[in-house]
Amino acid sequence: MVAVGDELLLGDIVNGNAAWLGAQLAAVGAPVVHSCMVGDDVDRIAAALRRALEDADVVVVTGGLGPTSDDVTREAVAAVAGVGLVRDPLLEDALRATFEAYAVAMPAAVLRQADVPVGATALDNPVGTAPGLRVEVGERLVFALPGPPHELAAIFHGSVLAELAARSGAVVLTRTLHCAGRGESAVAELVEQAIKVPGGVALAYLAGGGVVRVRLTTVAPTHAEADDVLAPLVAAAADVLGEAVFGRDLDTLAGVVLRRLRAAGATVGVAESLTGGLLGAALTALPGSSTAFRGGLLVYATDLKATLAGVPASVLAEHGAVSAQTAVALATGARERLGATYGLGVTGVAGPDSQEGRPVGTVHVAVCGPGGVSHREARLPGTRDRVRLLAVTLALDLLRRQLPGDTQARSSTSTSSTR
Amino acid sequence: MVAVGDELLLGDIVNGNAAWLGAQLAAVGAPVVHSCMVGDDVDRIAAALRRALEDADVVVVTGGLGPTSDDVTREAVAAVAGVGLVRDPLLEDALRATFEAYAVAMPAAVLRQADVPVGATALDNPVGTAPGLRVEVGERLVFALPGPPHELAAIFHGSVLAELAARSGAVVLTRTLHCAGRGESAVAELVEQAIKVPGGVALAYLAGGGVVRVRLTTVAPTHAEADDVLAPLVAAAADVLGEAVFGRDLDTLAGVVLRRLRAAGATVGVAESLTGGLLGAALTALPGSSTAFRGGLLVYATDLKATLAGVPASVLAEHGAVSAQTAVALATGARERLGATYGLGVTGVAGPDSQEGRPVGTVHVAVCGPGGVSHREARLPGTRDRVRLLAVTLALDLLRRQLPGDTQARSSTSTSSTR
Repeated sequence: MVAVGDELLLGDIVNGNAAWLGAQLAAVGAPVVHSCMVGDDVDRIAAALRRALEDADVVVVTGGLGPTSDDVTREAVAAVAGVGLVRDPLLEDALRATFEAYAVAMPAAVLRQADVPVGATALDNPVGTAPGLRVEVGERLVFALPGPPHELAAIFHGSVLAELAARSGAVVLTRTLHCAGRGESAVAELVEQAIKVPGGVALAYLAGGGVVRVRLTTVAPTHAEADDVLAPLVAAAADVLGEAVFGRDLDTLAGVVLRRLRAAGATVGVAESLTGGLLGAALTALPGSSTAFRGGLLVYATDLKATLAGVPASVLAEHGAVSAQTAVALATGARERLGATYGLGVTGVAGPDSQEGRPVGTVHVAVCGPGGVSHREARLPGTRDRVRLLAVTLALDLLRRQLPGDTQARSSTSTSSTR
Repeated sequence: MVAVGDELLLGDIVNGNAAWLGAQLAAVGAPVVHSCMVGDDVDRIAAALRRALEDADVVVVTGGLGPTSDDVTREAVAAVAGVGLVRDPLLEDALRATFEAYAVAMPAAVLRQADVPVGATALDNPVGTAPGLRVEVGERLVFALPGPPHELAAIFHGSVLAELAARSGAVVLTRTLHCAGRGESAVAELVEQAIKVPGGVALAYLAGGGVVRVRLTTVAPTHAEADDVLAPLVAAAADVLGEAVFGRDLDTLAGVVLRRLRAAGATVGVAESLTGGLLGAALTALPGSSTAFRGGLLVYATDLKATLAGVPASVLAEHGAVSAQTAVALATGARERLGATYGLGVTGVAGPDSQEGRPVGTVHVAVCGPGGVSHREARLPGTRDRVRLLAVTLALDLLRRQLPGDTQARSSTSTSSTR
């Protein structure tokens, strides 16, 4: 893949097209082996295309197909194909018709979008004025697509995807296990003791926000064959990781917690200090959260911990605002005052300064529910943002472990493992 | 730039590091000429590094420095430099110390992060375990930095930026005005009536999250010369945009609100419905927010709007949970029950389904303070995430406009304009 645009190199915009196309292409067995970004320069674009054509059977170039003078992808593709540009009368008529339809005077530059490399096929753009281009370069193939994501998606699905799927005749299947409560290297050690990864299967670990993702990927002629390869590996990894696995594939920790709450006909309320609302925000990010999330108490100021959440003044005086006792009192107060099945309390030191002699990153979380009270303490690393984010994960994971097992995840495990 | 990771090519994550680094490097006169992504494969990483070294004086490679078996950037950099890897005893000690500090058993694999190419300099990572690497390859330079954005940023600013700035000998100065309450095209129209952009100055508009950024950029031998060019343009744009401008450069809307509150010796408390904690999270994202932020009430369930925030049952019955009256009652309740100078209330329909006959995106925000009550209604576009985010901006901007003027921003304006 080659993405064209100064704005990508300058960081004005993120190259989301590369991620979107990467996922689309992997799904049809045409995984991306190399992806690059270049500026709006004919020679640099041409050089990038030539390099890409050395690496891959098919090159997808995005951007630089607009009407303005800095849109030079057409010229670069023609140069690489060793041909000139010719104006396509049908495209020209279509452009004129579009502007007439909107009763807008057409700037002359717009007609550049009707220029195509000799021998190229124009790909219909149902949502914009710049057509895509399909150009054969020897045995290899270049698709040039517009940069605006909705135009890219429309042309890719309309004119590109089917041909690439037919060429590859394979699917790439990915299975992911999401883990909390263990570090990346600890997860890796367990997984690699449990499974031998056969050739043709890629194993990767993605860590972020206190969650470690174990990802297994393989290529096969069919989805079923790929699944037969991955299912036993996923099942074995899930077994050895045990309770650390909170979900798989598209699951999120908050999503799993809400699913388990709904399955149990239970609700949750939160009392937050250092996270200042991040925990509530995570629990309300998904549609339908109102069925399981009651509400929350943001007790940032210490006096509010007493007046709003009912933390006894004696607890605050003896143990301090950052303590196991306060976390438990916050969880208990949240449960009572919000009328929830479970109360979840979080307090700690986000930094940059220590507090009450507790170092930055000290966090206490507690859950109060029908089964009683549980508490966890951690010393979280990193900056203020990171400590707050990790504290949310710590709290959600503690609640998750108190909730009845996740039947959806269970069943999907057994399905896989019995394949 | 070379970004390493199968997850980038498969589209599991977007390459935000490339955009962030691109902006950072342009700002010190070291613009990125080529940027690519490769998978977790030693040979492909090495090939990408060799190609990049043909194009550029300095190559920054991100990712693949972790402890797991798929982290092979170290090996690729060593291969390109034509040297082997050696274990650095100081790094090894630091890694052991880190795990001891957190009282966690250290998996053996972690020590791979103490391996460095012979002759390389390890770059201190203050927020993680994987150090960066500085490796000279002939006349050229390779910096290898970890993929997690907070680690990348910490090492880049700590050990990379200064050297690259010194090499380039030019400064690229950027001045940004942040606006809320007006759309991108309205802002652009005003700015382009007010200023003529001279050659050598780039004008760009970046819109997101309900904020429009007006960005002016120029290159000059010194910071002072660049500032002389931009200051009058920035001042003229700020004048024509008036109250819509809430801050400049590194300001954030929440940061400006907190600064104004502190300057006035005032505090704020929030009552949130559809945002579920995002508003509190925004107001507590910055250090020292506890001096101005009291706390909040997350009244997600309708009955909590009455019992927790004191919204009269009659208001909920007559006008509904999504109404101007409820927003005002939430603001008033937040102010009273949280003991704050200002109460900020937000209610609305995040979607995906409409509520009480109100369409998705309907949002009411209200402020209650010493000067009385003010309210704003909006119909916000987009998905659930976007509606929630825009609602936070709408609420913060309403509060910002009730607060005494921002002396810091004022003075920086006059400084610039009198240069």
